[in-house]
Amino acid sequence: MAPAMLTARFKQSVTPLALRAYLAEFISTFFYVFAVVGSTMASRKLMSDAATDPSSLTLVAVANTFALSSSIYIAANISGGHVNPAVTFGMAVGGHISVPTAMFYWISQMLASVMACLILKVTTVSQHVTTYAIANEMTGFGASMVEGVLAFALVYTVYAAGDPRSGPLGAIGPLAIGMMGGAMVLAAGPFSGGSMNPALAFGSAVIAGRFKNQAVYWVGPLIGAAVAGLLYDNVVFPGQAPPAPARSNSDVIGA
Amino acid sequence: MAPAMLTARFKQSVTPLALRAYLAEFISTFFYVFAVVGSTMASRKLMSDAATDPSSLTLVAVANTFALSSSIYIAANISGGHVNPAVTFGMAVGGHISVPTAMFYWISQMLASVMACLILKVTTVSQHVTTYAIANEMTGFGASMVEGVLAFALVYTVYAAGDPRSGPLGAIGPLAIGMMGGAMVLAAGPFSGGSMNPALAFGSAVIAGRFKNQAVYWVGPLIGAAVAGLLYDNVVFPGQAPPAPARSNSDVIGA
Amino acid sequence: MAPAMLTARFKQSVTPLALRAYLAEFISTFFYVFAVVGSTMASRKLMSDAATDPSSLTLVAVANTFALSSSIYIAANISGGHVNPAVTFGMAVGGHISVPTAMFYWISQMLASVMACLILKVTTVSQHVTTYAIANEMTGFGASMVEGVLAFALVYTVYAAGDPRSGPLGAIGPLAIGMMGGAMVLAAGPFSGGSMNPALAFGSAVIAGRFKNQAVYWVGPLIGAAVAGLLYDNVVFPGQAPPAPARSNSDVIGA
Amino acid sequence: MAPAMLTARFKQSVTPLALRAYLAEFISTFFYVFAVVGSTMASRKLMSDAATDPSSLTLVAVANTFALSSSIYIAANISGGHVNPAVTFGMAVGGHISVPTAMFYWISQMLASVMACLILKVTTVSQHVTTYAIANEMTGFGASMVEGVLAFALVYTVYAAGDPRSGPLGAIGPLAIGMMGGAMVLAAGPFSGGSMNPALAFGSAVIAGRFKNQAVYWVGPLIGAAVAGLLYDNVVFPGQAPPAPARSNSDVIGA
Repeated sequence: MAPAMLTARFKQSVTPLALRAYLAEFISTFFYVFAVVGSTMASRKLMSDAATDPSSLTLVAVANTFALSSSIYIAANISGGHVNPAVTFGMAVGGHISVPTAMFYWISQMLASVMACLILKVTTVSQHVTTYAIANEMTGFGASMVEGVLAFALVYTVYAAGDPRSGPLGAIGPLAIGMMGGAMVLAAGPFSGGSMNPALAFGSAVIAGRFKNQAVYWVGPLIGAAVAGLLYDNVVFPGQAPPAPARSNSDVIGA
Repeated sequence: MAPAMLTARFKQSVTPLALRAYLAEFISTFFYVFAVVGSTMASRKLMSDAATDPSSLTLVAVANTFALSSSIYIAANISGGHVNPAVTFGMAVGGHISVPTAMFYWISQMLASVMACLILKVTTVSQHVTTYAIANEMTGFGASMVEGVLAFALVYTVYAAGDPRSGPLGAIGPLAIGMMGGAMVLAAGPFSGGSMNPALAFGSAVIAGRFKNQAVYWVGPLIGAAVAGLLYDNVVFPGQAPPAPARSNSDVIGA
Repeated sequence: MAPAMLTARFKQSVTPLALRAYLAEFISTFFYVFAVVGSTMASRKLMSDAATDPSSLTLVAVANTFALSSSIYIAANISGGHVNPAVTFGMAVGGHISVPTAMFYWISQMLASVMACLILKVTTVSQHVTTYAIANEMTGFGASMVEGVLAFALVYTVYAAGDPRSGPLGAIGPLAIGMMGGAMVLAAGPFSGGSMNPALAFGSAVIAGRFKNQAVYWVGPLIGAAVAGLLYDNVVFPGQAPPAPARSNSDVIGA
Repeated sequence: MAPAMLTARFKQSVTPLALRAYLAEFISTFFYVFAVVGSTMASRKLMSDAATDPSSLTLVAVANTFALSSSIYIAANISGGHVNPAVTFGMAVGGHISVPTAMFYWISQMLASVMACLILKVTTVSQHVTTYAIANEMTGFGASMVEGVLAFALVYTVYAAGDPRSGPLGAIGPLAIGMMGGAMVLAAGPFSGGSMNPALAFGSAVIAGRFKNQAVYWVGPLIGAAVAGLLYDNVVFPGQAPPAPARSNSDVIGA
């Protein structure tokens, strides 16, 4: 790619419309992380051994589904509602968002996550911000694989929800994504932690100052996201009719 | 604003259509408060130390999501389905509802909340109506800030849901608002109480006769709501095409 | 009303289309009662003192929401999806269904409820079918009043969901009704039992052979349903444009 | 049916479009089984006597609803989103999918379930894959009957959701199916296990090497599914207007 093209693409990424998309990602990711990390802290406050109780897992998973669905909903028409660097990566791999735009999305999502955890730490005073961790008997590779499966499921659902061919079902897309997220947290919570979102793991790690196993929450999800995007676009449901199978949500800015 | 204009605006606020909107707000707020305060009382009856159990928090948050979604749904086409003085305030700040109309909304919402708590107190005989309270280690400022973040998230979602540009996603608007509400209760319940609705805190305080920390549930939410409205309308998604970006729901009455 | 008219109306109630509507009500009510009474029996089997635990209340309320939403969904285009004699009563009071048709609806709903409880009793062998009961400290009048508020909320939501003026929101009508039902169970469960459905209370009472307080589950809900129907149609949202404000769902048969 | 016709039908079942449908069924069933079996394993890890706790049942039922709704959603436009051999059987009985196609669906669903359980076993290292089992006091016939009722409810809902006559309600079809599934798990979990999906029971049994009562999870659901399909198409809601009442979802491939 020539430098001139790169510059042109970069310019596409700093238009007012694009800046609004970054702000929308920031706000949605802030709400999502605030709810998920907050609910983990809440269940730990209520029960010091919360990590060993089914009702705490249900609490966090329901918070995940509710927060993810609504956070995606409010950003859907502006930024596409990624709320997750793995989703942005999966969209970039599939060519639905340009690389410079994706990088600004990542920065917005990371900043939002750190900010949400910071506000939680400051306002709750005596509480520790909870971080994602893997179970004792799990290997780093196993946990990364589980997180990869989770991100695969999530990004595959994002692709299906954003597909204009889904017709009237498109109306419940954000709910389907949120439900897939919550179901996966219920399955993987006590094993790998069930983050499936690198920003979530990153923000809480920054504020808590504890980066153990951080790679698990980046390697697996990014690989899973890339595979999901390629599989959906090229194998399961390849574009047929339109020459450029524009995806309504993410094509708002750049491409 | 001249007195004549004020009178004209006031007259717009007492038409039959407007009176129906106030009644719709009353009914929806009544259902919402009945379900939320009732579920708190129910979980306290089942377990005297309910405030320290994750399953009680899940119970109340699910009641919040279910009741908020359905209460908004039934009033959406009549009053816009605010069900919350902070939402009404956020709409008035954005100019989507006139000030006199907003005041009648507030009165309807407050009366409905007091009435719902009164019926709960009378019918359950031996039960105390539960009030919102902040955790011991929280400061009033911290709790107010948390409640402000909650109201910010809620009102931002209300703006997004009422935006005619959201297309087919508009159909699940009430669900998105309810889910955001429930997610925020799961995150903030054990810290600030998770009211995000001044009418909810007010009604239970009136019937229980306990106004401690009442300001927390007014100051934070009203500021959060105003910021959300201004941010959504002016920065994230400013109106472009239509000269007067009418919001389908709330423009039914006045403006 | 002349006898000839009565006969004509009765004939309208035994057409093939009408018979299918009764069958649809039977099937939907069977699913609903099977899920709700089954989930109560399940939580009692898992924990003998289930009636005193918040997680059991959440379990039953979630079963209520899920089962009510899906049961209404599958019958919506055939019978209107009442699944509840109080809803049918509220529709008859509002003139949206003829009295003979309403009676056949009631018979279908009662038979379905008895059948569902019978199958639960037979297949689970050692289990007792759970019946609805009011808390010790509640009076019969107080419990009836609570059940009346619950049915009022439910029928009001049914009216709003069936209103053709609700536009795109009509798509999530069954979810809104189910959520209102679940929210009300969470609020009233430990006090009046949270039936809000006379068929539910009747079927379990028949199979368990225990009719104590049965009147509570009939008087309150029927009054609440009638008030909701009259209020919605005549006060909150009176018909304006069409001379006969036909309600898409329930006008399939009779009127 | 002549051999030539059989060959022609078989050829219809190996077109690129059909192969994509099998892949879509594989992916969706994989996600569904991963979430449901994973959540059962998670609740057992958190609480060794999880089978006797209401919050564990809620956890698994919510995972079921979330995973089923989203799994159906992502495959709806490609394979119809069966995710369950009993659903495929019910569709074949009603003539909405050809027998060879149905057999490929079954193979995809079985392979996906085995693969999901295998990955769960490998990654979680020390955990046993949980299998479906019936309560001690239940007879095999009773459990099979319960599972049959569950599959009946599920397939009936699938038929209603796929019916083009359901109008705007079609948009929430996957949610209605998932909710019916979750409600039935809440009702039957502690009695028959609440599988209602032969692939789910099969995959976990293969990996755990424990086939006790496996027939219960096949006989009941297949009979229930067939009855549901025949009842819906021929009695409750027979086709009227269109000569060939094509079902949008499943007619994508073969017939």
